[in-house]
Amino acid sequence: MRRDEFMMDDPAEIEAFMHQASFGFLGTVGEDGIPRVTPLNFVYANQAFYFHGSRMGEKMEHLRRTSAVCFTVADEYSLIPSYYSDPVLACPATAYFKSVTAVGEAVLVDDLEEKALAMEALMRKLQPEGGYATIDAQDPKYAKRLKGVAVIKLVPHRLSAKFKFGQNLTPERLESIAQALESRDQEQDRETAKLMRKYFTGSH
Amino acid sequence: MRRDEFMMDDPAEIEAFMHQASFGFLGTVGEDGIPRVTPLNFVYANQAFYFHGSRMGEKMEHLRRTSAVCFTVADEYSLIPSYYSDPVLACPATAYFKSVTAVGEAVLVDDLEEKALAMEALMRKLQPEGGYATIDAQDPKYAKRLKGVAVIKLVPHRLSAKFKFGQNLTPERLESIAQALESRDQEQDRETAKLMRKYFTGSH
Repeated sequence: MRRDEFMMDDPAEIEAFMHQASFGFLGTVGEDGIPRVTPLNFVYANQAFYFHGSRMGEKMEHLRRTSAVCFTVADEYSLIPSYYSDPVLACPATAYFKSVTAVGEAVLVDDLEEKALAMEALMRKLQPEGGYATIDAQDPKYAKRLKGVAVIKLVPHRLSAKFKFGQNLTPERLESIAQALESRDQEQDRETAKLMRKYFTGSH
Repeated sequence: MRRDEFMMDDPAEIEAFMHQASFGFLGTVGEDGIPRVTPLNFVYANQAFYFHGSRMGEKMEHLRRTSAVCFTVADEYSLIPSYYSDPVLACPATAYFKSVTAVGEAVLVDDLEEKALAMEALMRKLQPEGGYATIDAQDPKYAKRLKGVAVIKLVPHRLSAKFKFGQNLTPERLESIAQALESRDQEQDRETAKLMRKYFTGSH
């Protein structure tokens, strides 16, 4: 992370983003030393990331070989056109975004209770309206299925977050871009303007 | 890719998705053998992925050491609740998505003409409304800046795509889920239903 002004170190902000994002990208390394990046739904619970999958598949092969992985979650907010800052040059064009990257060991969860807790947390995140029997390792409906599913847990050794929302600007430039976004008013523009003002400290 | 029914091998479909997605995730490997996953805006042009960045930074370090990388682009469509398929069990809950994964060598582009073409293609993708002077290596306004920016090119050795839209279902289940999505009508639900019908071959 080269530009410190974009670093986010508020655990509540990071955790809120982890609850809001439904999927992220797991980086593993193949036998040939070549990285592989796999999109996966995930849940962040008890300071760990949990994923699930079949016991087969390339990513499980990679994890059996080496357990050091990287998991990155990112969401793009507004694209900031160059002409908000410069009438001629394309260079100031940029994108505002949130991203979180975790590095650590991925382990296969064997304990059925922990598997059930992880899968239930994932369901509560992705299907908050309910409509299913709570996942419980004691429930005979689920016990066999829980044995069959592979649950991977990543406890980060290192977790870093970058929230880029114009923190490097002067207060005047920030306000001018935030207002331009509000008048453009596409998709996430209003939310982006709100976050620009929220994360701005004026200390750069 | 374990389940062949989700594989997408129509180049036009893959290319259309690459033009629509504004960012993807580059997997590199660090000196320690640990993968790193970095979100990046990109453009897909002339069968190659182009990224840009500063000449500094961790990902540039990784690329100097080893050039084998993976780049994955994914977009999630509707989350499919378990109760569309089963009134009790959580197990059928899933997400429909498109993902494309490319593996190949990443090279630093030195040629200013190619840098300009790549950066101009990126601008046309992310700022299609224009409002800037065309990026041209002959243009003195841009020449020095083009020298300063690092442009990375990934020509895939292998490119695979997975579009998961219920192709494994029976025609009746597919139609029932598509209609449930249309009545829920949140965010991408109508688009998901449309794609379910589009990609369904009924051959499974």
